[in-house]
Amino acid sequence: MSPDEFRRAGYAVIDWIADYWATVEQRPVTPTDPPGTVAAALPGAPPTVGGEPVEAVLADLDSIVVPGLTHWQHPGFFGYFPANTSGPSVLGDLVSSGLGVQGMLWATSPACTELETVLMDWLAQLLDLPHRFRSTGNGGGVIQDSASSATLVATLAALHRASQGRWRATGIDRRYRAYTSAHGHSSIEKAARIAGLGADGVRSIEVDPDSQALRPAALRAAIEADLAAGDVPAIVVATIGTTSTTAVDPVPEIGAICAEYGIWLHVDAAYAGSAAVCPELRWSHAGLEYADSYCFDPHKWLLTGFDCDAFWVADRAELVEALTVLPEFLRNAATESGAVIDYRDWQVPLGRRFRALKLWFVLRWYGAEGLRTHIRSGVALAARFADRVRADDRFEVVAAHPFALVCFRLRADDDTNAEMLARVNHTRRVHLTHTRVAGRYTLRLAVGAPQSTEAHVDEAWKLLAAAADDLRTP
Amino acid sequence: MSPDEFRRAGYAVIDWIADYWATVEQRPVTPTDPPGTVAAALPGAPPTVGGEPVEAVLADLDSIVVPGLTHWQHPGFFGYFPANTSGPSVLGDLVSSGLGVQGMLWATSPACTELETVLMDWLAQLLDLPHRFRSTGNGGGVIQDSASSATLVATLAALHRASQGRWRATGIDRRYRAYTSAHGHSSIEKAARIAGLGADGVRSIEVDPDSQALRPAALRAAIEADLAAGDVPAIVVATIGTTSTTAVDPVPEIGAICAEYGIWLHVDAAYAGSAAVCPELRWSHAGLEYADSYCFDPHKWLLTGFDCDAFWVADRAELVEALTVLPEFLRNAATESGAVIDYRDWQVPLGRRFRALKLWFVLRWYGAEGLRTHIRSGVALAARFADRVRADDRFEVVAAHPFALVCFRLRADDDTNAEMLARVNHTRRVHLTHTRVAGRYTLRLAVGAPQSTEAHVDEAWKLLAAAADDLRTP
Repeated sequence: MSPDEFRRAGYAVIDWIADYWATVEQRPVTPTDPPGTVAAALPGAPPTVGGEPVEAVLADLDSIVVPGLTHWQHPGFFGYFPANTSGPSVLGDLVSSGLGVQGMLWATSPACTELETVLMDWLAQLLDLPHRFRSTGNGGGVIQDSASSATLVATLAALHRASQGRWRATGIDRRYRAYTSAHGHSSIEKAARIAGLGADGVRSIEVDPDSQALRPAALRAAIEADLAAGDVPAIVVATIGTTSTTAVDPVPEIGAICAEYGIWLHVDAAYAGSAAVCPELRWSHAGLEYADSYCFDPHKWLLTGFDCDAFWVADRAELVEALTVLPEFLRNAATESGAVIDYRDWQVPLGRRFRALKLWFVLRWYGAEGLRTHIRSGVALAARFADRVRADDRFEVVAAHPFALVCFRLRADDDTNAEMLARVNHTRRVHLTHTRVAGRYTLRLAVGAPQSTEAHVDEAWKLLAAAADDLRTP
Repeated sequence: MSPDEFRRAGYAVIDWIADYWATVEQRPVTPTDPPGTVAAALPGAPPTVGGEPVEAVLADLDSIVVPGLTHWQHPGFFGYFPANTSGPSVLGDLVSSGLGVQGMLWATSPACTELETVLMDWLAQLLDLPHRFRSTGNGGGVIQDSASSATLVATLAALHRASQGRWRATGIDRRYRAYTSAHGHSSIEKAARIAGLGADGVRSIEVDPDSQALRPAALRAAIEADLAAGDVPAIVVATIGTTSTTAVDPVPEIGAICAEYGIWLHVDAAYAGSAAVCPELRWSHAGLEYADSYCFDPHKWLLTGFDCDAFWVADRAELVEALTVLPEFLRNAATESGAVIDYRDWQVPLGRRFRALKLWFVLRWYGAEGLRTHIRSGVALAARFADRVRADDRFEVVAAHPFALVCFRLRADDDTNAEMLARVNHTRRVHLTHTRVAGRYTLRLAVGAPQSTEAHVDEAWKLLAAAADDLRTP
């Protein structure tokens, strides 16, 4: 494809996306077709001869692919956690694709590394993170694909420390333990499994029934029990904004325990970290000065497209020591000088794309104030929805909603709640998901799509109230 | 950013990329500034107020970022392995960014999963992979970010098998071993370290001095020795196209050994897998019917931008069993029906973007024949360069070059070769990298950028010959 062919086709794709965003609200949020529908509509073999105009592919996108999508940017999408994107993010990522550079080493594209280091320092300032995470000291930030990978990398660095450096050579040679609350994300168990600790290596610590947050006394007891058994506590993962309810673990108390026992503290703020751009929400990040590592996902709630997890460590040398492998074909003068960052040593994969560009475009388009406006809008819409729920005696709000997620249910049994969720989602005007809180089926409404307004949240409430009417609850 | 603002700014970015591609050849391949130059040119803090037009960011791209890049798409870039991209790949990825959907579960965006499954079957046909890898049987393919992650995932599935399923719960409770040749990629050691085997868990098997390929007899001996010591052989990673020299391990013999001992065989064809789109290069994939898993990187040599590693398994149930974790908030009817693929269980991260789109755009633009033309062009250009080297008695070609990488050196000591490389790269007209073959410093010229022609390869040769003149070698 020549540069001029690209220019012409590129305009068509830009138009297609602009039209998609302008009309996404009119589409059903979720598809209706059964499994296999999209696959059946595609040819069984790749084309032999190419040269199809991009317009032909866009036509198939319209007729085959888009009807099979759940539209995460739809203003009625309230499921899981949001996965925001925005125009500037898409354009920054487009530049990254067009440049096609590899940032595995500083030497393989210096600007790719340096822009990322600077942007991570900018983000650290935006969230008012402790100074120890900045690259100007011993710390530093890096973009991971997801919080799952951040947790994995933190677990590996923790094993390196807990083994006094043996782990790199000997692997898992003792019973190392990871600790997180019963509402810690599933990626913590997955990271432990990947790292060779097994499910048995993860201690699920009980939560306070009111706050749904980790109980420090239970953490201490678990650590003591493991030490008494001769096991090695390696990492504690505290959560700021759990996936179930956005509970905030008491990081100051957890951090003090980690400091006392010399255990690596990773703080997972995948969703709620974005909230820290607002000074009034920074209470949620108290105690972060204890953390050895911290991450949040700009791709969840900060208008930056997947994949973009922002991960920081307080001691970058420790992380690099844990992960570095230097084969001959990557040796270069800059690396050997020690004066540069080689981000391949901060992550699982070797290769890496220029992901800092999308963050750069987002920060320059929205500025700090624009990002705060976005977060505050989500918090206010969630509060508005929670007010509706509270005003109806048939319903209850089942957890605090400091951010933009509301957990609620009918005062009825689990099956009735599940049926209500199914009916509301069946309208395909909105999409909500569920969790369990204290064992009970609970609906979740997470605001986040930049296009969501009061009208969309109000519509979600009307559909829920109507479903409750139909279900003849008292 | 409204859809119409996006449309206007999007055209500007498309133009910027088209202009970049049209002029990249005129730029120095590598930057000249010392570490810290790009960082120093950026503000120390993020903007408070946003609203900067995209044109302002593009201007800073031109003045600050681009001068600090190594241009991987430059026709004079011959370093490492190529990281091809192409217009259709960029546009497919742009659609993915614009849709902003999450494909972690089938239910979270069915078309994202189904298009990927179909595209991976298309690729399997294009490469004529064994039928066992297709989703129509027990196998199936998935897009990973990189071959590093593919090797890690294969290692985890292998541990699950080697432990008879204990590993998920107990973790690493015995001494498990991984085997690869002395030229196996560094990501194999990294995967073993991540998985908790440690560097001691990796057996580096000697290579044949002529072919630089793994010696099956040495593999068998290492396995026998480990078994005798009570250790558990878990995985063998064979390489089709090693990073140093593109050596092809004897997969038929290796596969027979793995079958005999019940060891997981992963075949890493990260670079050379693309060659299998050409029937005349499929000899390199002999023995693949023994493999439990296989991967190659369309982002290296198949005109698809990073990140896109294509990874297949022969038994998808085994992989899913090893990696699945199902928290309440991800439960859904489609998953519970067993009728769908949830790709989150095929990879390390939970979230995933719609990467099949870029492959779809590439396959429809180039078709099978267009991809073959691209591969054959690279092979022919490499052969042309090797002829030049062979025709000059001062030089020697030090390994076979079945694909598009030529390994060569001056008949001189290591320092002289290193100096020659430095002088040629210092011209910034071309960029080559190095390796060591049988302990000796060796230059590598890897053809791959779609814009590279005979003129660029000839220029590389002229610069090398001139450097040799200057170094006054006999």
